[in-house]
Amino acid sequence: MTTIDETPVTIDVGTAYGLAPGTYDRDLAEVGPGTPMGELLRRYWHPIGLSEDATDLPRQVRVLGEDLILYRDRQGKVGLMHPRCTHRGTSLLYARVDDHGIRCCYHGWAFDTEGRCTDQPCEPDNGKARDRFRQPWYPADERYGLVWAYLGPPEKKPLLPRYSTLENLGEGEQLFTDDKNIGSGRYFRGEVPFNWFQHFENILDAAHFLWLHMYHSGPQFGSRYGEFDLERQPWELLTKQTFDVTDTGVAGTRQYTIPDGRLLRTVTETVLPNIRGVSNPFGAPGPGDALGFVLPVDDTHFRIFTVLRSTDRTFYEKIAGLRPDGDPPPEKAQRFPGDWEAQGSQGEITLHSEEHLSTSDRGVRMLRRLFREQMQIVAEGGDPINVGFAPGDEWVDIICGQYLEDPAD
Amino acid sequence: MTTIDETPVTIDVGTAYGLAPGTYDRDLAEVGPGTPMGELLRRYWHPIGLSEDATDLPRQVRVLGEDLILYRDRQGKVGLMHPRCTHRGTSLLYARVDDHGIRCCYHGWAFDTEGRCTDQPCEPDNGKARDRFRQPWYPADERYGLVWAYLGPPEKKPLLPRYSTLENLGEGEQLFTDDKNIGSGRYFRGEVPFNWFQHFENILDAAHFLWLHMYHSGPQFGSRYGEFDLERQPWELLTKQTFDVTDTGVAGTRQYTIPDGRLLRTVTETVLPNIRGVSNPFGAPGPGDALGFVLPVDDTHFRIFTVLRSTDRTFYEKIAGLRPDGDPPPEKAQRFPGDWEAQGSQGEITLHSEEHLSTSDRGVRMLRRLFREQMQIVAEGGDPINVGFAPGDEWVDIICGQYLEDPAD
Amino acid sequence: MTTIDETPVTIDVGTAYGLAPGTYDRDLAEVGPGTPMGELLRRYWHPIGLSEDATDLPRQVRVLGEDLILYRDRQGKVGLMHPRCTHRGTSLLYARVDDHGIRCCYHGWAFDTEGRCTDQPCEPDNGKARDRFRQPWYPADERYGLVWAYLGPPEKKPLLPRYSTLENLGEGEQLFTDDKNIGSGRYFRGEVPFNWFQHFENILDAAHFLWLHMYHSGPQFGSRYGEFDLERQPWELLTKQTFDVTDTGVAGTRQYTIPDGRLLRTVTETVLPNIRGVSNPFGAPGPGDALGFVLPVDDTHFRIFTVLRSTDRTFYEKIAGLRPDGDPPPEKAQRFPGDWEAQGSQGEITLHSEEHLSTSDRGVRMLRRLFREQMQIVAEGGDPINVGFAPGDEWVDIICGQYLEDPAD
Repeated sequence: MTTIDETPVTIDVGTAYGLAPGTYDRDLAEVGPGTPMGELLRRYWHPIGLSEDATDLPRQVRVLGEDLILYRDRQGKVGLMHPRCTHRGTSLLYARVDDHGIRCCYHGWAFDTEGRCTDQPCEPDNGKARDRFRQPWYPADERYGLVWAYLGPPEKKPLLPRYSTLENLGEGEQLFTDDKNIGSGRYFRGEVPFNWFQHFENILDAAHFLWLHMYHSGPQFGSRYGEFDLERQPWELLTKQTFDVTDTGVAGTRQYTIPDGRLLRTVTETVLPNIRGVSNPFGAPGPGDALGFVLPVDDTHFRIFTVLRSTDRTFYEKIAGLRPDGDPPPEKAQRFPGDWEAQGSQGEITLHSEEHLSTSDRGVRMLRRLFREQMQIVAEGGDPINVGFAPGDEWVDIICGQYLEDPAD
Repeated sequence: MTTIDETPVTIDVGTAYGLAPGTYDRDLAEVGPGTPMGELLRRYWHPIGLSEDATDLPRQVRVLGEDLILYRDRQGKVGLMHPRCTHRGTSLLYARVDDHGIRCCYHGWAFDTEGRCTDQPCEPDNGKARDRFRQPWYPADERYGLVWAYLGPPEKKPLLPRYSTLENLGEGEQLFTDDKNIGSGRYFRGEVPFNWFQHFENILDAAHFLWLHMYHSGPQFGSRYGEFDLERQPWELLTKQTFDVTDTGVAGTRQYTIPDGRLLRTVTETVLPNIRGVSNPFGAPGPGDALGFVLPVDDTHFRIFTVLRSTDRTFYEKIAGLRPDGDPPPEKAQRFPGDWEAQGSQGEITLHSEEHLSTSDRGVRMLRRLFREQMQIVAEGGDPINVGFAPGDEWVDIICGQYLEDPAD
Repeated sequence: MTTIDETPVTIDVGTAYGLAPGTYDRDLAEVGPGTPMGELLRRYWHPIGLSEDATDLPRQVRVLGEDLILYRDRQGKVGLMHPRCTHRGTSLLYARVDDHGIRCCYHGWAFDTEGRCTDQPCEPDNGKARDRFRQPWYPADERYGLVWAYLGPPEKKPLLPRYSTLENLGEGEQLFTDDKNIGSGRYFRGEVPFNWFQHFENILDAAHFLWLHMYHSGPQFGSRYGEFDLERQPWELLTKQTFDVTDTGVAGTRQYTIPDGRLLRTVTETVLPNIRGVSNPFGAPGPGDALGFVLPVDDTHFRIFTVLRSTDRTFYEKIAGLRPDGDPPPEKAQRFPGDWEAQGSQGEITLHSEEHLSTSDRGVRMLRRLFREQMQIVAEGGDPINVGFAPGDEWVDIICGQYLEDPAD
């Protein structure tokens, strides 16, 4: 009988060797024509720029993966066009606005805001057959200081919505509109370079609010009512958090008893298709005073427009004070990350196949489920939530806000 | 009987929703080896640089989608080589020119201008078997201050052409050669970043000349003879315009009676494969005094070489005066677009599927038809127009010019 | 009988017309997971950074086509992680190191260096089920001032090697480690932008040493012993060069009789998988005093780490003196090319289909053959050379050096 000297060998477990390449969920991420999410989003009006962006100098905008030209005609009407002139394809970016509408620089074909050809100066009799040509266009309108566009099937065009937050202004109140991406973690005019949905679902990620913005990087939005007791475990605070599917989207409600005994109830909501209802971190108790609109520019870029109801611009000035222009130094971004770093570093499009959603991701799961249901409704020819066709149905109630309640009441 | 209160609903027509993605015509746009246009273009000599570009310091050039190395050997002969040394693939950009020809830096293999291996210093006896290796090369020659190359099938190599405009110089006349893309709308050394053919066909686009360069952006090339009456409709002026397929290409002729009663006849022509015969906007009446050669660098870039027959460089100085270095400010480019904006904004390659050619596009249609016919001839093994193989057949007559005629004559 | 006047026509031979597009040998070039070379390389430990690169501030590194996060935990242990947090995919680049290990910024999940989840602060009871999650990780270790990583199958993990050159230091000797790509032709911190193997095989390219570094660009590494007689043909000198497959790789031996009659014998070697054993051009006769490790970053980038055994840093100072920061002026690079130009201009990945290996390429051929054999062994489940599993088997003998011998001895 032989004796074998055996050295125990430990085999590593869980290494990245053989890790399958990650993939993303195309339904959640892709917004182009013909995709399930793209078709759902195309059932709604989207803000695509400030009203002041529409002038006689055409401007290129990108919406849901489509390049378009935005301008204002001499009657003050906003036009939104396929960029390539239907004649020879020159971009209407170089067109001029005159009494005939928008007129291509190359051979002078002119179009009204609905794409009808109004003049062909180099064709016999200024275009005897010009009715046969149509410049592809999209309906555009204005409200709340924003230009809105509808990129969907014509027969499904809903009324341009009205949001309760932004209507029935009080004495001295105005609407103040901003396009510098409030909520993204930077304050700048431009495009945020990752998928819009990984930003949007984050609105219902109550855990990140506590961890990233309180525990990890220090209180990034303050604790005005003393509601965050950082000595406690985050998960204990999170037991005060509930989520509900509402008539218009998904809302998260947080209830904390603050040191003076009153109850602070904060409601954060996502309203379909892309509306952020988030409390003003500097604002007084009460209903939310601002809405954010997250525009999917394409699969890997988005913009955020904000409309504030207020007597002044103080809110924007405070935001500008918190976020200096430009990117922070790399080490500072690493040491004190915010939403930009947490969501942007998931990648241009996060890889859903690698995710492990947990208890604290309930709001995210509910929002995804709601979007999938709505995509299914659209795929079957139905109408998703938050679209209205009859007068009055354009109204959308917003419920977000922060409320202080005396339990004795 | 019930009464139904019906609100009339207007459904939008002609919107961009569902617009099919545009496509380009590969035959017109692609110039690489094996493509129909690429094979047609490869039946001609092409100017690929100024003579002064060919020196003992090798230079990378790109022609018809192929990267090549241009140099001049010690006997003064121009060489044009596949860039990767046939031994190990090091670029001949780092080669040196010595008595053996061009010599790769890596292991010293040397080649003559026809690619024969003349030395292998690291192989026994300097390369006993070096005759078995050949560096891929192309024939190159010089004329009119330009280096010309032939990238086609060897058995189809025509004679290097002579153009009537540039021959039989008069007393005091010289040829002046320029590579700064005259005709593109910018004046600079480099590559114009879109497909060559959407520039080239524009030469026969008489309508754009009137609209873009007169009505839209103000007279960009003047109206020296008072021939353009901008009070009239462009389409009336365009009735004075005819197009003809010539022996060498397509020519457009414009006849206007100028205020003093004389007839101004202007002939603009495209000569295959890539020659611009366009009147000098500053020149005196008479036959054209310059030719432009539009080199397809690849599918999305081109260069223009110009050869001027003159007693001096005044023409180039005037061009330089009109076009400051660099791009204009964006708003200026939008307000006063020229060829660069009109053609460049069609895209790197225009989308032919979206075009709607009209009456005024006759010249463009004729040129496309001629090219398609010539591609077909080449595909069937024949020889296209403007190639000559027997002495004398290298002559190409150029007919462009601007002529003033007294109707009494 | 008719007489035909025939002009003799010469048809060009060997032109580039019809040249098939070149291709590269995927086995030699590709290093990603699942490729033959990639799987061979994954059987070895690779240096991936300096020990000082691993700190509490996570750092992104790229190795064999995989992006990874390198850091050091509070116990001083080096960690190497898949970058995307297993929870929601936020990059651990923005994580912080604390007593629990590395902790993602988004929701605070923490992991030890073997990927075990140690805390989930937003999950009930800090993560009752956290054992079910594992952050993908790789084994990492430190030696010679370098961080080493093993990216291969866990059951095949060999011992971290010891190289004879770097062991048993003498009185006053130390190891000095450098990551500025010595041997690439530039001296800088960063990535060399072409395929690692076209650099690595060049080590056995004795002909380039003579031609590129002596005859072409002037003596770039000197001729300290007067061994290079530039009056002679390079191929005569190359007859003094032999190549051998060794136990560990391929070695090249050069024997020259120097002017004083002594024999100079220089041994250069490649040790699998990626080790450069090249004589110090400034060093005294004797065994090599430094090793280079060529890290394949991905298919088109590499880095070189050097470990020097010496009493001081003089070697690095001399290298820094030879190679100023940044790229040389383009004309200088063209007139005096070095390894960077010769190998880099072969392309991001050279096109093996266009090569014509010759007599002087014997070392290159032998190295390729050895790699193909080893890839085959790995594909069949075997162990390649230079891996050791039992104590003592981690030792690798290095034989490179430059030796002066008196023939009378």
